[in-house]
Amino acid sequence: MSVYDLPTGFRFSGIASGIKKSGKLDMALICSDQPARVAGVFTKNKVIAAPLQISQPRVAAGRCQAVLINSGNANACTGDAGLEVAVQSSKMLAQQLSIAEDLIAVASTGVIGVQMPIEPFEQALPRLVELLADDQAAVVAEAIMTTDAYSKAASARVECQDGAYNLLGLAKGAGMIHPNMATMLGFVMTDAAVAPELLDLALRRAVKNSFNSITVDGDTSTNDMVLLLANGSCEGAEILPGTEAAEQFCQHLDRVLLDLAKMIVRDGEGATKTVEIQVTGAASEEEARVAAKSVATSSLVKTAFFGEDANWGRIIAAVGYSGIDVDQNRIDISFNQILVAKNGLSTGPELEAEATEVLKLAEFVVTIDLHQGDATSSYYTSDLGYEYIKINADYRT
Amino acid sequence: MSVYDLPTGFRFSGIASGIKKSGKLDMALICSDQPARVAGVFTKNKVIAAPLQISQPRVAAGRCQAVLINSGNANACTGDAGLEVAVQSSKMLAQQLSIAEDLIAVASTGVIGVQMPIEPFEQALPRLVELLADDQAAVVAEAIMTTDAYSKAASARVECQDGAYNLLGLAKGAGMIHPNMATMLGFVMTDAAVAPELLDLALRRAVKNSFNSITVDGDTSTNDMVLLLANGSCEGAEILPGTEAAEQFCQHLDRVLLDLAKMIVRDGEGATKTVEIQVTGAASEEEARVAAKSVATSSLVKTAFFGEDANWGRIIAAVGYSGIDVDQNRIDISFNQILVAKNGLSTGPELEAEATEVLKLAEFVVTIDLHQGDATSSYYTSDLGYEYIKINADYRT
Repeated sequence: MSVYDLPTGFRFSGIASGIKKSGKLDMALICSDQPARVAGVFTKNKVIAAPLQISQPRVAAGRCQAVLINSGNANACTGDAGLEVAVQSSKMLAQQLSIAEDLIAVASTGVIGVQMPIEPFEQALPRLVELLADDQAAVVAEAIMTTDAYSKAASARVECQDGAYNLLGLAKGAGMIHPNMATMLGFVMTDAAVAPELLDLALRRAVKNSFNSITVDGDTSTNDMVLLLANGSCEGAEILPGTEAAEQFCQHLDRVLLDLAKMIVRDGEGATKTVEIQVTGAASEEEARVAAKSVATSSLVKTAFFGEDANWGRIIAAVGYSGIDVDQNRIDISFNQILVAKNGLSTGPELEAEATEVLKLAEFVVTIDLHQGDATSSYYTSDLGYEYIKINADYRT
Repeated sequence: MSVYDLPTGFRFSGIASGIKKSGKLDMALICSDQPARVAGVFTKNKVIAAPLQISQPRVAAGRCQAVLINSGNANACTGDAGLEVAVQSSKMLAQQLSIAEDLIAVASTGVIGVQMPIEPFEQALPRLVELLADDQAAVVAEAIMTTDAYSKAASARVECQDGAYNLLGLAKGAGMIHPNMATMLGFVMTDAAVAPELLDLALRRAVKNSFNSITVDGDTSTNDMVLLLANGSCEGAEILPGTEAAEQFCQHLDRVLLDLAKMIVRDGEGATKTVEIQVTGAASEEEARVAAKSVATSSLVKTAFFGEDANWGRIIAAVGYSGIDVDQNRIDISFNQILVAKNGLSTGPELEAEATEVLKLAEFVVTIDLHQGDATSSYYTSDLGYEYIKINADYRT
């Protein structure tokens, strides 16, 4: 984890508690030396897992010192018994850390509808506290994985007038064929001192343009949660809303979360490409977003990406059924600025051949200009491979 | 096609015109001996293919005698040139059939954004007319296929007071991972005499509960079209709205379209199961439909079906993010009436083991009772296999 910029005053640990029968790491702890300010974004699912029922009001109160996370069992649809386990695990941890219970947030990810036993917590918590160390963030990133193919971390070091501060983001989640209910967890730690109202705004802005532009959004799991902890351990002055320092903080937070979000996209099943779907010239940002999401989630578009087929017809059709009002005779489509459709018509085989070269890249941008206004929005997606492809990708040949 | 009940006064033909480079059948003609009354349902996509721009107003006028369909090229996003080809092909056919041009509907399915040449029509139409015969409906079903693994036809013979009439439905479409933009075409022919206002109502009702409960709905392609032609060739009296005969007609039409819709679901990529997602106890039919669709389109639910895992947690989560208001503590979930969750909690391993047996069947019903009212709706879906499964289906074991 030494390649990352580590915020001071945070310690981390991870352990195999036995929740995962595979014996892999399945419990993690993030602990700040002093109570941190916290902002959170939670699932909008009407079915809410037990840990969120506890963590949500605590985070809303604005302070958090420790985050306890388990993987392997979501503790969702587990009724009063599940809630009791979440409460008890946080109570035990509070005692062992000698901090107030309401300074602890809990999070879970894994199977839904299976009762969560208390025993793994009873047995693992003392050791988890004992293992806490400032260089163990990578272990946390690994312990929160479920179907993830690899662990996900991103960081930033920000130089400012009176010193420097760091941002470290850890996340779990694997890109699905369609934005769906696989749990997405994200934890961002910073040693900057950030005004509470700025902390909340900054997190919401960053989540909208990262996690909510890939897999979360309306289609959230019972367990989704993103927390931003700022413990003020660095030397610098408090960052206040409306200042240049605030904008600087937001930009770095945006970047850390977008990096994590792209890692989630790349972790799709058999995904070989990360594609930005950028809609420009929309009447409003919301319309741009709706159109971009429609294209990004189209199985046929994603299949064409896998087949390295510059099939803009599927793209324009996905714009057409997105629900926004469009004029098909004004739509331009490009792959990394190679224009394949102008005013809704093909620009010819030469440019399509050039675009086909773009599709061979591991990462590229599809730009869809609606020519209706000047609003822009992006969504991130991956290609879609295997059997489904056998049926659809070679459709044009 | 002799296993089907054929409506009298209709003739059919199909030919390989060269649009499909594979040399497979790609052009079809359905022709009534006399002008038929017609009702139609068309895509809601804002990007509309050329043939629909011509057919939609003609069908709205209420009469149709011939339907010309090609596969292999959607004639969508082809601008004025594409429109001209659609107009010319229908003009040529009108001359050869010696009927008015506005009695012809045209439909296309295939690749989007590739110019459609007129030559295949010029060369194939005379032969297509020559081949017309009352026993060639199966050839039409085959000629309209694109990614379909098999052709789709369903029929009914209805005995009534003064004789009998027949309904024959032909369709193309392959179930996608998610309701998506693969074109769905459906053509239903009957020799009953049906009052125009009834014809329209009957078609809308039947489409809603069949094609629009699988793949069409809001996520329509540029080319989707369902036509119902009634030529009145049978002996019986005209079927009038509000009569017992009308309800009988509707029920048989419903059944024919539902049969076709299920065939489309079964034709999903590698699909091995057809599953009805039935939501009961909803506050309104619309809410039931929204919840059923959410479950039916969840990649994780479909993956669990493939893995024969009675993973009701994924089902309840998909209900939770569907957007309707639900109380997770009142939801019951059954597989073919085996109750696996009661009031949002597991009913235990014995019943889950029984439910796992249900999941081994090729066809079963998942019932989700919301206990909020008495409205019901169903959506039809398939399981989801292969690589995606390797990641998700064995997640619990």
